[in-house]
Formats: sequence, C-alpha cells, structure tokens
Amino acid sequence: MEEKALVLCSGGVDSTTLLAMAVSRYGAKNVYALSISYGQRHNKEIESAKAVAAHYGVEQRFLDLGAIFADSDCSLLSHSSQDIPEESYADQLAESDGKPVSTYVPFRNGLFLSAAASMALSLGCGAIYYGAHHDDWAGNAYPDCSREFVDAMNRAIVEGTGGELHLCAPFVEMSKADIVARGIELGVPYELTWSCYEGGDYPCGACGTCIDRNRAFEANGMRDPLLDRLDAEWAAANAEGEE
Amino acid sequence: MEEKALVLCSGGVDSTTLLAMAVSRYGAKNVYALSISYGQRHNKEIESAKAVAAHYGVEQRFLDLGAIFADSDCSLLSHSSQDIPEESYADQLAESDGKPVSTYVPFRNGLFLSAAASMALSLGCGAIYYGAHHDDWAGNAYPDCSREFVDAMNRAIVEGTGGELHLCAPFVEMSKADIVARGIELGVPYELTWSCYEGGDYPCGACGTCIDRNRAFEANGMRDPLLDRLDAEWAAANAEGEE
Repeated sequence: MEEKALVLCSGGVDSTTLLAMAVSRYGAKNVYALSISYGQRHNKEIESAKAVAAHYGVEQRFLDLGAIFADSDCSLLSHSSQDIPEESYADQLAESDGKPVSTYVPFRNGLFLSAAASMALSLGCGAIYYGAHHDDWAGNAYPDCSREFVDAMNRAIVEGTGGELHLCAPFVEMSKADIVARGIELGVPYELTWSCYEGGDYPCGACGTCIDRNRAFEANGMRDPLLDRLDAEWAAANAEGEE
Repeated sequence: MEEKALVLCSGGVDSTTLLAMAVSRYGAKNVYALSISYGQRHNKEIESAKAVAAHYGVEQRFLDLGAIFADSDCSLLSHSSQDIPEESYADQLAESDGKPVSTYVPFRNGLFLSAAASMALSLGCGAIYYGAHHDDWAGNAYPDCSREFVDAMNRAIVEGTGGELHLCAPFVEMSKADIVARGIELGVPYELTWSCYEGGDYPCGACGTCIDRNRAFEANGMRDPLLDRLDAEWAAANAEGEE
C-alpha cells in the first residue's frame, strides 16, 4: 500500500511550502490538505488554502473548531475586544513579560494537530505535516511552535495511536526566509497565499505576520508575489475603467 | 486568585470519581466540567454527565466534535458498519494482533485533552483532570490511556501553553476497582453514571465496558448502584401499573 500523509494547510507561506514538499514526496493523490477555521477575523486564509489545494490537485478537508474558543479573548478572534498589535513578535514579546503574545490562540496548534491526528488515522495516513518554524516561536511568542512542543506532540501522537502515526515538522529550526528559499526551488505559487491577520483586500503590512512575511521575501532578494499579483489585478481593473 | 480546574466528564465511573476529587480540592465554583460528543451511538453518556454536573453544582460546557470522525469506521460511532464486540478488552486484544480494539476512536483522548486545554486556558484554569486508568490501557487496547501517552500529552500541554496549564491523571496506574473504592469514600453518586457502549434502557452487561464496570463493583463487594436504581424504577413503574 502506498504511504499517505495529511498536511495542515492554513493558506499561508509555511504550510503551502510544506504541501509542495509532501506532494513531491507522496504524490498528489496520496496527500490530504486539512484547513481549520477557529473563529478568526476573516475568511481569507481558508480561501487561500482552497486555491493552493486546487493548484496542487490534493483532496481537502475542512473543520470549524470556533466553538472551542468561545471563552477566549485572543486578539485574532472575531469576537475579541482587543486590537491586533502592529509590531513584530520580538517587540511584542519584549513588552509581554515573557508571556505569549495577544495573537496566541490558546493551545490552538495542539488542538489542530490532535484533530489532524484523528482525521489522518481515519484516512489511513502514516504522517501529519506541520509547518511550525523558528521565527514563530520567536523566544516564546508562540510556545506551541517550539521544538519542545513539537517533540512532545510527536511523542503523544506516536504513543496515543499505538505507533500508527507520527508528526513531521521539517521547519521547526528554520527561519521563514529559509522556508521561502526552499519554496522558490519547488515553484510554490506564493501569489495564492495569504498571511495578514487583518482581512483587507490588500495585506496591512503592519501586523506581526506581515512584517515577518515581507522580511522573508526581502531576504530572498524579491518582492512578495502576492503584492505583484494584487497590483497587477488593480492595474487591470483600473485600465478597464478607463476604456 | 483561587485556582481553577477543568474536568473531562464523560458521565462514566472514572470521570465522575475524578470530578468528585476536583470538587473536594478546588470547590465546586472553581471547577468546570467539559462533556464532548463525538458521534457515539447514543446520548446516554451526555445525559449522565449532565446529571452528575448538576449533582455537584459545577458549571458545564459541551462540545460536539463528531465531524472530525466522519471518515472513521470505529465500532463506537453511530455511522459505523461494525458491531460492538461482546468481549473483555483483554480477549479482544488477544485477537487483534496487538492493534487497538475496534472501539478505539482514532486519537480521541488526545483530541479531547487538546480541546480541554484550549478551553481551560480561555477560562483561566491551571489544570485539566483526565480519568485514564490502567484497565483501559489493558496492554494497549486503548493506547491513548497509557502512562506514556499521558506523560507526553502533559509535556505538550505544559510546553504549548508556556507553562500556564498542566494535566492531572491520578488514575493512570490504578484499576477501575481502586477508583470505585476511592469514589465510595467520597460518596460518588454512581447511580447517575452510565458506561455501556449500547444505548439501551438497561446496560447490556456484555460489552467491554459493562464487563469492566461490573467487575469493579464486585471487587468492592457491592452491586452496581445504577442497576439498583433502574430495578427500583422498574418496580415502581410496575407497581403503578397494577394499582
């Protein structure tokens, strides 16, 4: 029997690069993309995840786990009273006394990995792919992106499934710039991805994830292909208006 | 600030005993009971969990995670094509070549603990209580009840929440008979609990969990108080009919 894998796909840069890697290893027909709503402020991530899964021709599953966060006041959630900070993770962390940043969704990644494990096992997959990386950990801005967390979750998944399933997190020691470099080699369609925490037509450029994303493309000597695409679409729409 | 805890409550013997312990330690107003539907064949567990939470006067939350198991053919699920085996866990395991038994729901307990972690953190709790015990592990019938699994999940929860939350699983090395002995001391209302995998008016007496439950009360020199209650109700209903 051919091996199968399930990839947690948020529609962002990291998990899209991961999907490209899984497809190149297992083949598109043996890969499932799982995309999870959790009550975030906008639907752009899920729309991007759909476009990416369609690009690679992989079967996609969706879950809505928003009910679990009904009592959370995390600033990323649509019912939150808090604004999303316009600072890098490092700057936010310096002000937070070592506690997770306000965009940390309580144990979200542990929940996503567990839901992924239940689904992966049901679908006959032997591996879950997870795109946690070193910049997101950022000295504990997101403790559920640390090497220690990933190792413990892998242990829990291996033990709790009687050895049927394990976790692959190849980016856990990598920077986002390294991930983009790998993705460029694989021809990842970054113009289809979305990262910004705000749900505007154009990325805000000011939230933690926009800052992180822009730096990663800059480090690779290029402009974000998403901005190129949006600019081109805007120019085309404008040109039509002038006709 | 007073410490708070969240208890995973299925309405069965183990988690009801655990709830009694948490209430005696933290006080009823600092304890949350979390009860999760996952597409099981009947609603008796959730009804029992409600009765137990009401008995102790604790705030209760409900989640429905059934969508996650849509692709699973576990015999415990209402959409499964398999029958529930009428054997003890040990006998089933002897026939399964060391694989989890057919009533193992894929990584269910990992998922429940992760959902509990997300909710507990949102509610300001510092601990999650989980009733896994040695008889359920039963040489790997349910790998997500093993000491190794519990230790790894605790590690994942501590790491993934930046040390804000941890897992308490005081029964992990205990038998169900030991748990019942502890519960009797605490005056646990076992007549309100439900364990049977089938959803009849009366426990079937033949499924793995019925066998396990009956042995635990026998070992404590008593009959299951649930059977006494159901017999008394039946006798009362019958007496009314004769009037």
